[in-house]
Order: sequence, then structure tokens, then C-alpha cells
Amino acid sequence: MQILISEIKHWMTEAGEMIKTALLANQLTVDTKTDRKDLVTNVDKMTQDYFVKKIVAFDPQARILGEENGQDHLDKWSGRVFIIDPVDGTMNFVLERENFCIMLAVYEEGQGILGFIYDVMKGQLLWGGRDIGVFLNEERVPQPADIPLSEGLLGMNAAMYARNSHNAQIMGDRSMGVRMSGCAGLELMGMVLGRRVGYVSNLAPWDYAAGGVLIEALGMKMSHITGRKLKLDGRERFLAGTPHAYEEMLVLSQQANN
Amino acid sequence: MQILISEIKHWMTEAGEMIKTALLANQLTVDTKTDRKDLVTNVDKMTQDYFVKKIVAFDPQARILGEENGQDHLDKWSGRVFIIDPVDGTMNFVLERENFCIMLAVYEEGQGILGFIYDVMKGQLLWGGRDIGVFLNEERVPQPADIPLSEGLLGMNAAMYARNSHNAQIMGDRSMGVRMSGCAGLELMGMVLGRRVGYVSNLAPWDYAAGGVLIEALGMKMSHITGRKLKLDGRERFLAGTPHAYEEMLVLSQQANN
Repeated sequence: MQILISEIKHWMTEAGEMIKTALLANQLTVDTKTDRKDLVTNVDKMTQDYFVKKIVAFDPQARILGEENGQDHLDKWSGRVFIIDPVDGTMNFVLERENFCIMLAVYEEGQGILGFIYDVMKGQLLWGGRDIGVFLNEERVPQPADIPLSEGLLGMNAAMYARNSHNAQIMGDRSMGVRMSGCAGLELMGMVLGRRVGYVSNLAPWDYAAGGVLIEALGMKMSHITGRKLKLDGRERFLAGTPHAYEEMLVLSQQANN
Repeated sequence: MQILISEIKHWMTEAGEMIKTALLANQLTVDTKTDRKDLVTNVDKMTQDYFVKKIVAFDPQARILGEENGQDHLDKWSGRVFIIDPVDGTMNFVLERENFCIMLAVYEEGQGILGFIYDVMKGQLLWGGRDIGVFLNEERVPQPADIPLSEGLLGMNAAMYARNSHNAQIMGDRSMGVRMSGCAGLELMGMVLGRRVGYVSNLAPWDYAAGGVLIEALGMKMSHITGRKLKLDGRERFLAGTPHAYEEMLVLSQQANN
């Protein structure tokens, strides 16, 4: 496990340097995918290729699930699976040049074992797992207090909030305020660091795999917004929170009509 | 003018050090004002007192408008006025320990002359004015491109977005995405740095005075959301944007029923 962890940390920092270099050199080529707001850049693709090459060299048996380059679906979850989001928050990457991250999760036999979230521009690598705890760079992260919804900031998806899907607006009202950062990884990092009481969104597996391992390692909860287990297949309405806030939001979600 | 500028920069950085020291020492005492989400801390009050003392010593004739300590209204705008927000984004200050700023604006005869926004935790001081341009620390900030709404991120107020006030949701849909940071100063700093195409919110004078001077110095526009001039008196529905995006949003706002 130690070898695997130090190997992945090396990949994350090396990929971060590649991304910073490309940003500074203004070498971004931006394309759209499903619609005008669904962006991908040459840097997303290059970074995913980098990870795939490293993973294949390190563990040729492992499966890989990633956002880009047609690797976005898996039929089998047996053995070891690496889940990659080469640039999470691509819109921020392009328009803000900050507030994005690299994410990688390791699953074994369908269970999340390790998670890594790297805020490239801040130089903050959050990593850990169920059996080892969570660390920010080399400092252990304490378990956040189990605060109720009313005492924390709630990360929120804009479309769900606009439509009050699953009572998202009521969840927001009961919290100390909603925040929209445009980066799932940084919202989940915020939960780990005690800056968010929860997160409501519509996410693909690579958006929550790494952060999910980390929040669960610290006793926080996540599921489909209706309470069922996440399927790790396609986009799903996502709910996460401190145990206390999660239960409050789940009740609100189950009372909703839409 | 140079003496005034270097004096204020000195106050901003000194106040920033006081705030960081208080944060690190965990010396926050949090109270509520109008409701449970309207926070004020001992640090907001201490910082405003610091500025008031410095201003009175520097220019005893000047008037002062500030968020805290009962200095939140002015009858006369003649002569020189200092407008202070000692901690903008107090909720973030308390719950995130980042994403807040100190703001100061200088008005003369009712006109904004100088603006200062200090992102304390990032160590970024944005400052400038109509006649001198805008600087980030000591580097001149170029004029952002006059992009349309469809090409940029839109800073947004949660309550206005939830209720679709002034067609806020349609504005959001037409942009590249909405962002809610909980800090007006950082949203306006984002406009200056080309990371936001605009900002829609409900703001008091100290929330937009400094940022307003800076965005106008770079050719961007702001007004009440209906298009009339801001009154600098009490909370107002606020609209700002690149000239292109501002006009698009103003049309949407004027077409709205609420």
C-alpha cells in the first residue's frame, strides 16, 4: 500500500507541474463535448494519457475509468480499478485558471480504498483512505465535527438549486449559505477540511470517487440523493454531508415532488 | 494622491496581518446582527476601529462610512469620504477561514476616486482608480476583453437566483455558469481579473464601493439592476458586467416581472 500511495502522489505532483506549465505557456486548446458548457481541453486529454501510461506500467492488470478519451464506462469492478479525473472543474481551469483539481481514486473489488484530490494552483494534495485516515500534504486532517445543516455552508449544483430539485432550495435556506464553485473535487475537499456541511450535485463517478473515499474515511456520508447506493455508472443526483446534515437533507429530498 | 495611496496600502496590509494573527490564535467571537446568517465578529469591529483611527489621524475632515459600529449611514457626500468594509465575506471568514477580503474606497464630492480590495489569505491587493488604472500588488492589470454574457462566468446572489428575481436564472443560463462565493469583493475582483463576466447581487455601499471604482476604471459597468444609478444608501439590487454583458443582462432584468 505504501508503494502504491507514494507512486500515485508522484504522478499527481508531476501531472500538476505539466498542467501549470501548459497554463503559463498559454497552450490551451478548448473543445466542447455534449454542449457549449461541457468543455474539454488538450490538457485534460494529455493529463489523462499521462495517468493511463503510468498506471499501465505500474499495474498492467488494473482497469481504468476516466472522464476523457472514451474510457468513461466499466462493465466489471473486480480487481483493482483506477478512477481518474484529469482536470475537474475544466470551466474554471479555462476561465479562472484556478479552482480546479486533479483527482484519482483506487477501488478494489468495488470498494473505494484510496482517494487523492490535488488543488494544483494552491499546491494542496489531499489524500488518504479508510484504513489510513486523511492527510493534507503531510499533515493529518482531524475528523470534522458532526454539525447540523444549520451550522455550515452547503456546496450546491446551480441547475438543481434553480429548479428546487429534491428541495435543494430548502436545504440551502436551512444551511448557513449555498456556495457554487464549479468544482466537485474542491467541494468534497471543503467537506474534509470542515468548510462545508454537505454537497448536493449531479455527478459522474470520477467527480465523486476520490472525494467519496476521503469523506467516508472521516465518517461523513454520501449516496444517491434518494438515499440508495451510488451506482458508479453515469451521472447521478448526489448527496453528501456530515452524518447529521446528511440525514436532514435526505428527509427533505424524500419529501420533495421533483 | 501618491501619499494617500501609499498610506492606504500600508493600512490594508497592517490590518491584514492583524486579521491573520487573530485567525491563527483562534480569537474569533461571533455575534449575529439582523438574523442568524448575518454575522459580525470581534475582528470585523477591531479592524474597522483600526481604519477609523488611521483615517481620523490622516485626514480629520474626512467622513467615514463603514459596515460596523453604527457608521453605516451618511447624509452628506461632499468633501472626502472613506468607505470601509473591514471584513467582506464574514461568513466565509468564520467558516472557511479564506475567501474574505478587506475593502476601502475613497470618494470625493460623491465620485469614486480610489478602490482597494485585499484578499488577505492570498496576499493579493487589488487597487487603483479612474486616473491611474488598476494594479494587482505592483503589477498593472490589463483591461479585460468586452466579452458577451455567453463567454464568461457570472457571480450570483443565492436568494435572487432561487427566486429568479429580474430573470437572474436566465442570465445564469446564458452565461458559462453561475458562481456563488459569498464575498462581493472577490466577485468584483474576479471581474477586474477577467474571471467573471458580471455580478448580480443585493449589496450595501461598502460591498461595491471599492470594487465599483476598480471595474469602472477598466471600462466595465455597474448600476442598480433596473439601470438607474446606485444611491449609495442602504442595500440595493446590483448589476455589473462587461459593457456587452451588462447590456444583455439589463434587457433581461427589464423584461422580468419580479
